[in-house]
Order: sequence, then C-alpha cells, then structure tokens
Amino acid sequence: MALIVQKYGGTSVGSVERIQAVAQRVKRWRDAGNSLVVVVSAMSGETDRLLGLAKAIQNPPSPRELDVLLSTGEQVTIALLSMALEQIGCPARSYTGAQVRIRTDSAHNKARIQEIDGARIRADLQAGRVVVVAGFQGVDEAGNITTLGRGGSDTSAVAVAAALKAEECQIYTDVDGVYTTDPRIEPRARKLNRITFEEMLEMASLGSKVLQIRAVEFAGKYRVPLRVLSSFGEGEGTLITFEEDIVEQAVISGIAFAKDEAKLTIVGVPDQPGIAHRILGPIAEANIEVDMIVQNIGADGTTTDFTFTVHRNDYERALSILQSTADALGARAVDGDDRIVKISLVGVGMRSHAGIASKMFAALAKEGINIRMISTSEIKISVVVDEKYLELGVRALHQAFGLEKESG
Amino acid sequence: MALIVQKYGGTSVGSVERIQAVAQRVKRWRDAGNSLVVVVSAMSGETDRLLGLAKAIQNPPSPRELDVLLSTGEQVTIALLSMALEQIGCPARSYTGAQVRIRTDSAHNKARIQEIDGARIRADLQAGRVVVVAGFQGVDEAGNITTLGRGGSDTSAVAVAAALKAEECQIYTDVDGVYTTDPRIEPRARKLNRITFEEMLEMASLGSKVLQIRAVEFAGKYRVPLRVLSSFGEGEGTLITFEEDIVEQAVISGIAFAKDEAKLTIVGVPDQPGIAHRILGPIAEANIEVDMIVQNIGADGTTTDFTFTVHRNDYERALSILQSTADALGARAVDGDDRIVKISLVGVGMRSHAGIASKMFAALAKEGINIRMISTSEIKISVVVDEKYLELGVRALHQAFGLEKESG
Repeated sequence: MALIVQKYGGTSVGSVERIQAVAQRVKRWRDAGNSLVVVVSAMSGETDRLLGLAKAIQNPPSPRELDVLLSTGEQVTIALLSMALEQIGCPARSYTGAQVRIRTDSAHNKARIQEIDGARIRADLQAGRVVVVAGFQGVDEAGNITTLGRGGSDTSAVAVAAALKAEECQIYTDVDGVYTTDPRIEPRARKLNRITFEEMLEMASLGSKVLQIRAVEFAGKYRVPLRVLSSFGEGEGTLITFEEDIVEQAVISGIAFAKDEAKLTIVGVPDQPGIAHRILGPIAEANIEVDMIVQNIGADGTTTDFTFTVHRNDYERALSILQSTADALGARAVDGDDRIVKISLVGVGMRSHAGIASKMFAALAKEGINIRMISTSEIKISVVVDEKYLELGVRALHQAFGLEKESG
Repeated sequence: MALIVQKYGGTSVGSVERIQAVAQRVKRWRDAGNSLVVVVSAMSGETDRLLGLAKAIQNPPSPRELDVLLSTGEQVTIALLSMALEQIGCPARSYTGAQVRIRTDSAHNKARIQEIDGARIRADLQAGRVVVVAGFQGVDEAGNITTLGRGGSDTSAVAVAAALKAEECQIYTDVDGVYTTDPRIEPRARKLNRITFEEMLEMASLGSKVLQIRAVEFAGKYRVPLRVLSSFGEGEGTLITFEEDIVEQAVISGIAFAKDEAKLTIVGVPDQPGIAHRILGPIAEANIEVDMIVQNIGADGTTTDFTFTVHRNDYERALSILQSTADALGARAVDGDDRIVKISLVGVGMRSHAGIASKMFAALAKEGINIRMISTSEIKISVVVDEKYLELGVRALHQAFGLEKESG
C-alpha cells in the first residue's frame, strides 16, 4: 500500500462539479489500495475576490491580517472536498495549515515551512481516512496564521509528502505534463515522461511555468518524487526525478524561453576590481532583478564592456540608473535594447556530450538568427536574440535536436 | 479606563463601507479612553452562500466539515475589520475562535462554550491594540473547529466579556433597543432604557427576537451587563441588567407575542397519574416542541381535558399523533385550532403587585376578545386568543398598562 500525496490547484477545484470530479479521482486511487493525502488550493477566483475586499479597505493590507483573510480560501475547499468524499462513501477529514500543523517562520505573505507534524495525518490514514489539507498556509510559533505566497500550495504538498515520506507527490494542474517546449510555439513539442530536478529547475525559471520553482527545489532537497499530471485527463504526466533513476538520458530535454527581457550594456568602463559591484549595486538597490550577466574585456585591454538583462518592465528605470553609474565611472557609453528574448537549451546530458553549443549556434545561424549574448551553465545554454526570432529560433532548435522524437 | 466588549452582527458588517463605519465607531470608543474587544459575525449573506455550496455537495453536510466551512465567514470579517481599524490609525489584531482560544465541547454545529483563555487578548489590550474576535466559533479539546449555531456570535461576545470581566457587553444590531412591544403593531411602543435579565428572557422567548436567548442566559449567569444598541444610530440602547440595579421598577415592562401558534386539546381522558407523560411523550418523540401546557379537571371529576400549544408548522403532525393517543387512552375527542396567537404581559414588578391578571383580562374583555387559554409564571401572564385579535389585543394592553409613558 503506497502513500500518495496529491495536490489540486484552483482551477481543478473551481466549482462544485470539479470538486466532485476530484473526489471521484481520489476515490479511484484509494480503491486501488493507496493511502491518500490531498492538498488543495482555494477555488479559482476566490483569492482575487478576497484580495479585492482587502485592498478596498487598506492598501497595502496589513500582512498579518491579509494572511488571516486569504487562508479562508483553502479552508473552504478542504471542507467541501471532504464532504464530496464522504458523499461517495470515502471517509475523509480536513485540516487547515494550523491544525496539521504546518509550522512556518513569521514572514507573513511569504512564509517558509520549517516543520510539519505528521502525527494527526498518520493517525487518520491509519483509520482508513483520506486526509485533506489546506495548501498555501501554515502557522508560526506564536500561533499566527501565515501564507506561503502565490503558488505556495505546490510547496505545501511537497512538504507534506516529505514529512510523511510519501511514495510520490502528484501535482494536478491544467496541463498534462512537462513538454520539450511550449506547444503553442512548436506544435511538435512532445510531453516528457521523465525529467530531472535540475532540468526542471532550469525549465521552470526560464519560463515553462508548470510548477512553482520553490516546490521543485524542496522536492529535490528532500528527495520526493514529483509528478505533474492533468486533473482533467487520464495520462501518466511527467515524473520529476533523480538523475540516477533515469537509465537512458536524452542529451537535451527541452527548450525554454523568456519573453519580455531587455538588455543593457555599459561600454568602456575601466577594468578594475570591484567594477561589477559598482555597476550592479545601484540596480539591486532599486529592487531590479538581474538575470544574465556577461562581461568582456574591451579591445584596448584596459576597459571592459559589461552587459546584463532585466525584465522589460524595469528597462527604463535600469537605463537611467546605469546612465548615472556611467557618468560616475567615466564610461564611454550606455547602450540598451528592450526587444530581446532569451532561448535556452536544457539537458543534463550535455554534461557528457561535447559539441552541443556549436550545434546550437549552427542551427540558429542556418536560419540567419544573430546571437546577441551567450551564457552557459552545466546543464543549459542560453542565448539572447532579437524578439522577432523567438518562434523561429525555438522551432529550429527543437528540430535540430530531434526533440519531437521519443529519445533513448 | 473601562473594558468594553462590542458585538456587530452580519448586517452591521455586510459591506466594505459598513465595516469602515464599524471601525470608526470602535475608534471613537477607544479614543474616549476605553479598551475594546470587538466580536463580529460573518458578512450578511456569506453563511447562506457557504451553506448553499455545502448542500450542493452533501445534504445534510458532515457536521465537522460544515464547521470548518462556515467558520471562514467570521474569519474574513475579523481580517477586514482589523485592516479597517489599522487604516484609520487604530492598532488592531484579529483572532479566530481557535486562536483565542474559545474552547467548546465537540457538538459540531451547536457547540457550547466551556472555557476562554483571555491571556492573548489581555496582552494585546495591554499593548494598546483593539482585539477583533471571530464570533460563532470555537475549538474543541482535540483541536477541531466548532460552531455555536445560528446567533452564536452574541453568545461568543458575552462569553468573552465574562472571561475578561468586561464593564459592559454591547450588542450592536439593526434595532436601537428593546421596545415595550413591536412598534410595527403598536406605533406608540416605547424603547426601554433598562430591562432585567428575567424580563428579557421572557420577551426574547416570546417573540421579541432582539437577542439570542442563550446569550441572555449566559450574561445573566455570569453577571455581564448587556446593552442592545443600533449600529446605525447613536442612541443609548437598552441596558439589560440585574433587578437590584433598577431603582424604580415599572410593574410591566412590555408585551410580547408569538404568532404562528396552534393549540390542541384531548378531551375527556381518564384523570390518572402519568397521563401527561402518556400524552406528551409521543409528541416529544416526534421532535415537536410544546410551548404552553394547561390541564383542567373535567366536569365529571374523573376525566380531564389536556391542552397544549405547538408551532403551526407542526400542527398537522401533532394532531395525527394525538388522535392515535386518544384512541389508545379511550379519550372522548381531540380538538384543535391552528389560528391562534399568544400575547404575554412581562414584568418583574407584577410579583409585588396584585390585580395585574384581572386588569389584563378586563382590558381584553372590553374589546370583546375571548381568551382561549391562560398560563402564568412569576413575571409573565400569557393568554391565547384568536389570531385576528393579535393587533387589537397588543394595543389594548399597551394602553391599559400605560406603556407609552416613561414610568417610575
């Protein structure tokens, strides 16, 4: 008898009918001989409704009181799902985050889970009940209600699975798995049956937003096998697992991309120690997140060009900050472009395969796509290109690496 | 510096604007130098919305899960009111029933308060904060969420006031106090400044539904002065207090009435010990609540007539049960009337004043109103009359006892 933790997001529990459908699915897993813990989000739209009420009263709302307010969303869902389960003859019991208890730090609205007491859950499972737990929420040392921030329900599910040493943590969502790339751009994109945690982290942070990145990190850290499935279909989804469990590893798993990027370059700054900090410090102080960073020695050998990317929304602010920095440092010029995108090749297999980068660059060159910036890590290669090349670039790489075919 | 507990019902917190108005009122009391604890209900309509969701899934819903569901209603209100208070510069902190903690028994949907830990509330008051507590809800020994049943927020407020030994418990509602009778029937009905607990209990149970009867009992037991006020106006309301505090006691405080009554009589049953139980036992087993009971020895001295009243909705069922009982007991006949009402004169002063009953009967006779049944207690006299006489009877008594005038 396996212990399975399932998580259903807001869309999956968005109406009475969908809650009833979830109950039927949970019952099938239980009837097959498994122990089930189900973590749920607020019904879709509910969190926004509550947030609207709060903002009509206090903007920004008190972080502590906002958590008291928003946590009611999942509390409604756990009660309704438990009723739906009992209605079809499946004994069930609901728990709020505070009841479990899912202990977090006191950082309201973005709390981090510190500890989970699995005793009550285990006792209920022992008694043959399905346990329904409110995602997204917890309780701090002093008994204050906390929430984990948007998407925190994925993290709750993984944390519960880790605490109970569950066989698998299944994240039900509105897509049926992780794809080699976005099917809206490349119709031949293929669902992956397996992917490693490292790859998933690169895919998630690069724009394939299937799972919350914190949840993936958490699962990797506590070695909880994670599976992404559709709550509307019946497929096997994608299993996110450990490298050693994957016998035959494809070289490349997928192609991620990030739209809405912008790049900034400060040209001809003196190449001195500490220069990176003097350039990026003011940017960080303005709370602008920097993604890629590339530095090259200039042609003269004494000055350097320094390039980085930010979100397009932050472009104007970053440009004006950088201009001041350039004046202060005596740089030659500041240059920028807010019409770029990032395309990344991801795969743990590239560690042991040479020539991936040159194959990538060749594929892009063949289509006349100019590469504006390159950045690499152990398991990914990212390039920045003009935004008009996004679709062409993704499709060219998808084909060049044969991702439409099941690989071995 | 007085400690005041205020309670605001669903209508008083039914919208963002009303919550803001409550916050303003709370702030005025606090600015006047008082310590404030505020107990709130769910926003009006919310409990019914949640109940509708539950019943669409499971009917009747699981009592435990229904409490998890319904308790979110007040949790939303405490968060929003705390935000509204902070928005106008009034430090505030919210607590759910479980957080306070308001410990109840485990009777889901109709739990009874057993204990309140006032430590957290006292610490917050000490720190200068307004404390906002969710009414209607608590937590049992095992940590399960419970609710007190409809109107339970009044009881929560009184219990919190008792635990904190508050100076006064103020119940804000949509009427501005307790009246000598229903102003919709007698426009000259007068708001009472004071009324005793005993009178209030008689008034409440007899149809003047201003306060939940359990809350009044609770306040009487723990000697918490209770005040009913309007959340929309500015008056002093009605103080419900102890007899000894009322210096000059009016003979009669008010006239209550109950519509929708029905009376049943079993005629000519043998006058034997235990006959009352044999008649009312089957009625009680059918979960029909009996209000007035009157028994008279019949004309022959060996049989008796036995009359009682029930709610009009239960009339047909009660009649059919009574018919079977009559057959079994060999009674002469069963008689019934579902077009009757009960009118009651209430006042602790009647204890020491003779002649109240005869004055009442005279006033009704003068209007040609036939009395069908009489029942008396220490502080009330109730009569049953044809329903067509309700308004006439109430007005006649109101005038006969001079209730429109401030009395001394």
